[in-house]
Amino acid sequence: MTGAKVHLEPLVRLALAEDLGPGDLTTALTVDPTVQAQAEIVAKQDLVLSGLDPARLTFSLVDPAIEFKPSAADGDRIKIGTVMVRLNGPAQGLLTAERVALNFLMRLSGVATLTARFVAAVRGSRAKIVDTRKTTPGLRFLEKAAVRAGGGVNHRCGLYDGILIKDNHIAAAGSITAAVTRAGTGAPHTLKVEVEVEDLAGLEEAIAAGADIVLLDNMSPEQLARAVALARGRVRLEASGGVNLDNVAQIAATGVDFISIGALTHSAPAVDLSLRFI
Amino acid sequence: MTGAKVHLEPLVRLALAEDLGPGDLTTALTVDPTVQAQAEIVAKQDLVLSGLDPARLTFSLVDPAIEFKPSAADGDRIKIGTVMVRLNGPAQGLLTAERVALNFLMRLSGVATLTARFVAAVRGSRAKIVDTRKTTPGLRFLEKAAVRAGGGVNHRCGLYDGILIKDNHIAAAGSITAAVTRAGTGAPHTLKVEVEVEDLAGLEEAIAAGADIVLLDNMSPEQLARAVALARGRVRLEASGGVNLDNVAQIAATGVDFISIGALTHSAPAVDLSLRFI
Amino acid sequence: MTGAKVHLEPLVRLALAEDLGPGDLTTALTVDPTVQAQAEIVAKQDLVLSGLDPARLTFSLVDPAIEFKPSAADGDRIKIGTVMVRLNGPAQGLLTAERVALNFLMRLSGVATLTARFVAAVRGSRAKIVDTRKTTPGLRFLEKAAVRAGGGVNHRCGLYDGILIKDNHIAAAGSITAAVTRAGTGAPHTLKVEVEVEDLAGLEEAIAAGADIVLLDNMSPEQLARAVALARGRVRLEASGGVNLDNVAQIAATGVDFISIGALTHSAPAVDLSLRFI
Amino acid sequence: MTGAKVHLEPLVRLALAEDLGPGDLTTALTVDPTVQAQAEIVAKQDLVLSGLDPARLTFSLVDPAIEFKPSAADGDRIKIGTVMVRLNGPAQGLLTAERVALNFLMRLSGVATLTARFVAAVRGSRAKIVDTRKTTPGLRFLEKAAVRAGGGVNHRCGLYDGILIKDNHIAAAGSITAAVTRAGTGAPHTLKVEVEVEDLAGLEEAIAAGADIVLLDNMSPEQLARAVALARGRVRLEASGGVNLDNVAQIAATGVDFISIGALTHSAPAVDLSLRFI
Amino acid sequence: MTGAKVHLEPLVRLALAEDLGPGDLTTALTVDPTVQAQAEIVAKQDLVLSGLDPARLTFSLVDPAIEFKPSAADGDRIKIGTVMVRLNGPAQGLLTAERVALNFLMRLSGVATLTARFVAAVRGSRAKIVDTRKTTPGLRFLEKAAVRAGGGVNHRCGLYDGILIKDNHIAAAGSITAAVTRAGTGAPHTLKVEVEVEDLAGLEEAIAAGADIVLLDNMSPEQLARAVALARGRVRLEASGGVNLDNVAQIAATGVDFISIGALTHSAPAVDLSLRFI
Amino acid sequence: MTGAKVHLEPLVRLALAEDLGPGDLTTALTVDPTVQAQAEIVAKQDLVLSGLDPARLTFSLVDPAIEFKPSAADGDRIKIGTVMVRLNGPAQGLLTAERVALNFLMRLSGVATLTARFVAAVRGSRAKIVDTRKTTPGLRFLEKAAVRAGGGVNHRCGLYDGILIKDNHIAAAGSITAAVTRAGTGAPHTLKVEVEVEDLAGLEEAIAAGADIVLLDNMSPEQLARAVALARGRVRLEASGGVNLDNVAQIAATGVDFISIGALTHSAPAVDLSLRFI
Repeated sequence: MTGAKVHLEPLVRLALAEDLGPGDLTTALTVDPTVQAQAEIVAKQDLVLSGLDPARLTFSLVDPAIEFKPSAADGDRIKIGTVMVRLNGPAQGLLTAERVALNFLMRLSGVATLTARFVAAVRGSRAKIVDTRKTTPGLRFLEKAAVRAGGGVNHRCGLYDGILIKDNHIAAAGSITAAVTRAGTGAPHTLKVEVEVEDLAGLEEAIAAGADIVLLDNMSPEQLARAVALARGRVRLEASGGVNLDNVAQIAATGVDFISIGALTHSAPAVDLSLRFI
Repeated sequence: MTGAKVHLEPLVRLALAEDLGPGDLTTALTVDPTVQAQAEIVAKQDLVLSGLDPARLTFSLVDPAIEFKPSAADGDRIKIGTVMVRLNGPAQGLLTAERVALNFLMRLSGVATLTARFVAAVRGSRAKIVDTRKTTPGLRFLEKAAVRAGGGVNHRCGLYDGILIKDNHIAAAGSITAAVTRAGTGAPHTLKVEVEVEDLAGLEEAIAAGADIVLLDNMSPEQLARAVALARGRVRLEASGGVNLDNVAQIAATGVDFISIGALTHSAPAVDLSLRFI
Repeated sequence: MTGAKVHLEPLVRLALAEDLGPGDLTTALTVDPTVQAQAEIVAKQDLVLSGLDPARLTFSLVDPAIEFKPSAADGDRIKIGTVMVRLNGPAQGLLTAERVALNFLMRLSGVATLTARFVAAVRGSRAKIVDTRKTTPGLRFLEKAAVRAGGGVNHRCGLYDGILIKDNHIAAAGSITAAVTRAGTGAPHTLKVEVEVEDLAGLEEAIAAGADIVLLDNMSPEQLARAVALARGRVRLEASGGVNLDNVAQIAATGVDFISIGALTHSAPAVDLSLRFI
Repeated sequence: MTGAKVHLEPLVRLALAEDLGPGDLTTALTVDPTVQAQAEIVAKQDLVLSGLDPARLTFSLVDPAIEFKPSAADGDRIKIGTVMVRLNGPAQGLLTAERVALNFLMRLSGVATLTARFVAAVRGSRAKIVDTRKTTPGLRFLEKAAVRAGGGVNHRCGLYDGILIKDNHIAAAGSITAAVTRAGTGAPHTLKVEVEVEDLAGLEEAIAAGADIVLLDNMSPEQLARAVALARGRVRLEASGGVNLDNVAQIAATGVDFISIGALTHSAPAVDLSLRFI
Repeated sequence: MTGAKVHLEPLVRLALAEDLGPGDLTTALTVDPTVQAQAEIVAKQDLVLSGLDPARLTFSLVDPAIEFKPSAADGDRIKIGTVMVRLNGPAQGLLTAERVALNFLMRLSGVATLTARFVAAVRGSRAKIVDTRKTTPGLRFLEKAAVRAGGGVNHRCGLYDGILIKDNHIAAAGSITAAVTRAGTGAPHTLKVEVEVEDLAGLEEAIAAGADIVLLDNMSPEQLARAVALARGRVRLEASGGVNLDNVAQIAATGVDFISIGALTHSAPAVDLSLRFI
Repeated sequence: MTGAKVHLEPLVRLALAEDLGPGDLTTALTVDPTVQAQAEIVAKQDLVLSGLDPARLTFSLVDPAIEFKPSAADGDRIKIGTVMVRLNGPAQGLLTAERVALNFLMRLSGVATLTARFVAAVRGSRAKIVDTRKTTPGLRFLEKAAVRAGGGVNHRCGLYDGILIKDNHIAAAGSITAAVTRAGTGAPHTLKVEVEVEDLAGLEEAIAAGADIVLLDNMSPEQLARAVALARGRVRLEASGGVNLDNVAQIAATGVDFISIGALTHSAPAVDLSLRFI
């Protein structure tokens, strides 16, 4: 997203610092500093690409003389065996930066690839696949971008760009009605009000109180279908809790608007990549 | 590890900044700032615990008045349903800090739990389960601690605390012998020299050149067993590549000293936890 | 707002660093380090208070032994002559921290005080006074809190927590309809879509395209009234541009929902305060 | 001032971070990333320019491809309607960076413009207009530069580059004589000693004690004139307190050397600018 | 100096980060985390103490449970064998923090001790021993404090708190007269103007131009004496260049006001200290 | 070392910040901003060069337009009078950056030069000269590189990349045997185990326990020779304590493998350099 690169440099510096410490001993001792090399980053499985920006910055912070030439873009579907990036520059820098750059690409493409599987599973329904705040500490913005690369859409980014009233907020405010009303009055007018409910009575109360979106927590497909029928389009509905690749199509078929899935970011396995010298 | 907490504060501040931004709108609008609450963090699956330090710091940076009382320690095996931490303090702070604290605990306990499964699988063999540098950018030290919590041992932490000569270093130096010799001469004398080989001829050359450890890359159990026989204890042997829970016991049975597994840190699924108010 | 204090420390450290440099020479040379003192911060004009958090942190970073005891809270209306804060501690620390603490209080109370004047001027109308992104670089979150202290409500905090489509976005997208549609489809579902229009035709198009809020830019009270009539409650309306204390009541009387005013934060004069030793 | 740019990058990054957060949603959703645009920053009032450096850096951190071509320099007097800066580059980056860049220019030109009005008001006298430490937290160096752009001269920048003994220091040291003597003995020899007095007896004592500069606090023009007569050039005299555009000429006419004015930095209204696309 | 501690934390964190990295392996592996210990820091040579603040902060950042009880203060003369600090707390933390804390104390006490030798050598003269900007990168403020602890006085701290016109500035401005005049007109009025000259003609010109202080660069004692005679107290005189413990008394005897010595900070040998457990 | 430059920017920014503060007043007031100049850095004594990277970065952060052209490399032996670097660019930037750049070069070349003297003194023996952790806070990595430039080899960089068991660790673990065993079992397998002993019995125990390296603390040359004889090559031996240029050759002649010397980094006098304009 435009402007997002402003945040990248501190994160990439942190990742480099923890990997390099005082420097790459093995490379310093075995590789002549004047040697130039060519390398390429290759997909070792089918995947959806994400993470080119932090990978590029990793190489350029280690050595600005390294050329980083991607042949694909974030969001592209990549077939196993495809060369995704060509690299050119001092062999020392390429070897020193390799691991950190791949760590970014493997994790973020992992998130994008898993997201794409969920998106494919609900194709044909009205449901959008959305992420949660269950992200890796420090990687929130990058993992949200990876979800978009995989065809998902983002839920709120943090506690500041969306109102989501959960059970404890309702308990503290006294009732769904009280909580929704207070949120609607005090929040910036650019934000909608979403509230989590546990049953159809809660859904009715939320609609009556003026909620814009209702999160249906851990409901069965049957309950979700009844909720959709009851809501009659007066609010948008988000299903959440216990979603996996086996049940997501069934959930989508209930007619909910959004299905949010923590596993997109907290449990996506890394994709398999390699950097090979040529 | 003693001294490791010095690094935590910047990372936890980063994680809080990306989640809180200008503040927790929902909580500010629905929860009275004077309300006190009690809560507990509960295991929703069997797991090995890791991440108490960042979780504690998360709560205390949001509100120093929050009490964080763990009833278990990093490395403990926790049964489903166990209350692992009791919390006490202003309800606003508890709600605001909850997600970031859980994100640390879920991921790090995920790493510890997966590690423990690999460790259990090789019990009875001489092999130790070790991690790699395929960690989440920014979380290197925490994920390495999680591996220890799960009963694994750490490989080098970065490019600075271990010599590991790979194929490209060998190519650049001219031969295994040349690379090992240069590394042995120039590196701090506190470090051993490890070299990656692809066949038994490479292993022989590495031993002759004076390597302390040899990494056997992507070999079959049969090849590994031949390598162990050939080495006759003259070097320590590390198996790497393509290891999973199905084949790790067979690999361990070959007699190698170490089995390194990238998935411990790059693909461990998060464990399931919840924070509930009482 | 809960969680907002996490951001304060870096800002207060920056403000102290630029004022103290290597240290407070005059105080070091003239005041005995063992002398204790009492002081109080007094309002030298009627004002609305804002800025207690950064002021408290300023004193405590200079010397944790300083006690900071406010007798009022952010948002309180303070009469000239009132003692707002009592201080107690080492005289050196009090003198060294004084200026930076007052600089925070003077500016932020200035914003709150000006906001309160606008809020008073529209009392009785449905219009809420809202701020803009025309804030002091580095003080965004504090100035937004000061607006709330003065009785205003916050517009979006930044480019990430609200959709506001302006003329250049419309030009780039091709039409109001195209821009609103694309924003509504791609944005997090927790966000409303606001679009700026310059005339009533634009307002019609925005409503038809499904905008949630329409910003009426630089319209006269007559035009605003016609817009209110035309909208018939189908969208919320925000008036913006050229608002001042002389015309704000007339604008509010047109029936718009929000009046946004850059001057709240970019041109609020500082309030007059003093710290006196007793 | 040469070397001052070293400090700019952290401040501009802070300002961008608080405005952009995870990114500019509206622009990402409505503007094609390949579109190039031209824009210009135009004065909507007569003003004195300040802030080109932070504005330039804002655009270049958002997108290094943006060209920033000023047609005027800091300190120039600009007529309403003048194009001060021409911009060229990706439309997304221009839209994303616009607000932060303008926020710097509006505030800093505001300080320069107000300073210039005070400087004009004392033209013909010996008095110089000087600033104070009553600056915006985080913007000290930039606001001091803006005062110079407006024709003023800087007082000390912080507590470390000037000795200014105030009433509480005098009370702590025991007397004006004691305080001035201690400061003169212990301070770096590159610094002069300034002391604040409240009456002519204080002025006499300060001169006798060897002060280099005497600050006359809150004196009437008559008292100031008597002070000038009494001092007979033996020290330099600075008038302070309650200075405004109505009385500054009369104060200057008393013959004091310096008139220091907190409002230059704490209450300067922002100037009116706009960035328009062409 | 009051306020100086604000700067310490980032520096001490940097020093700890580079020493600890992911943690203190040896201590973690050999020392039980529950063991408490007592230790003391002992002088192994006569010395002047400096550096207690960073040493204390080092221990408290590693483990806040460590008690740090100095029995002497910065600036005290310490005899060989004296226990300067008593420590109490977890053995792991004491061992982990030891080296960084001692590194601060050894270097800073080294600066104080060397300064004290120069101060002793000029006792009885009017000359003060002053430092320069030839300090260790990152330790400027601490080394300046160490010079004060040793009985020296500080020259300007940086390029911002003193005017010192050197040969290249004179060349650029055209003449001593031009440079001194421009500096006197434009600088904050709290600063004196110092100018470096190479001969007596330069001294005459500097005095005539209104310089406050003249730096006599690399002159012999005979030349310095002639300069003192020529100046007749109209300016203060600073001798600089080639000063050592053998010639400093002779230089002081010429009657100059200040003798500045780069070696105080750039070449002071560390003092010998040890931390022993009891 | 490859990758080490990643750490430089924060350190050089810190060094510039403390020297420049709000800017270089003298240069701003006396030197025209459009003037270009040429300068050169000249050795005023024989020396071994180190510090080119931080010096280059210092100039480029102050003004990217400055060209920095070294005619020698780190590690080169330089004769008095040699021009080591040629500089070209705006005179203001050259003057402003000069001191910080020279401070880096003087200290780091000082470390390299002293190291080279020790290395020369042991030529012909098997002993290598190694450094310690007694480095300047914040400059660890640069001073370690300077030792390499002088022909020395690095000991461990911090507490994380080497096991070094000292007397207090032994006391805590119970015995040399216990400590060595625990360290050997738990540490990353890439690290050797070094243990400090005080007599030959300790050496025997360390060898039996499986230590890789034994540090012989404060032994006389006679004791060291007996230790070498006793060890018979089963471990590597490091002599430490009380080493100076007078006794280092005698120590080396005993046959130890390493001689570690704290003074290389904690007490190396700065070399004499100057930057002259041409």
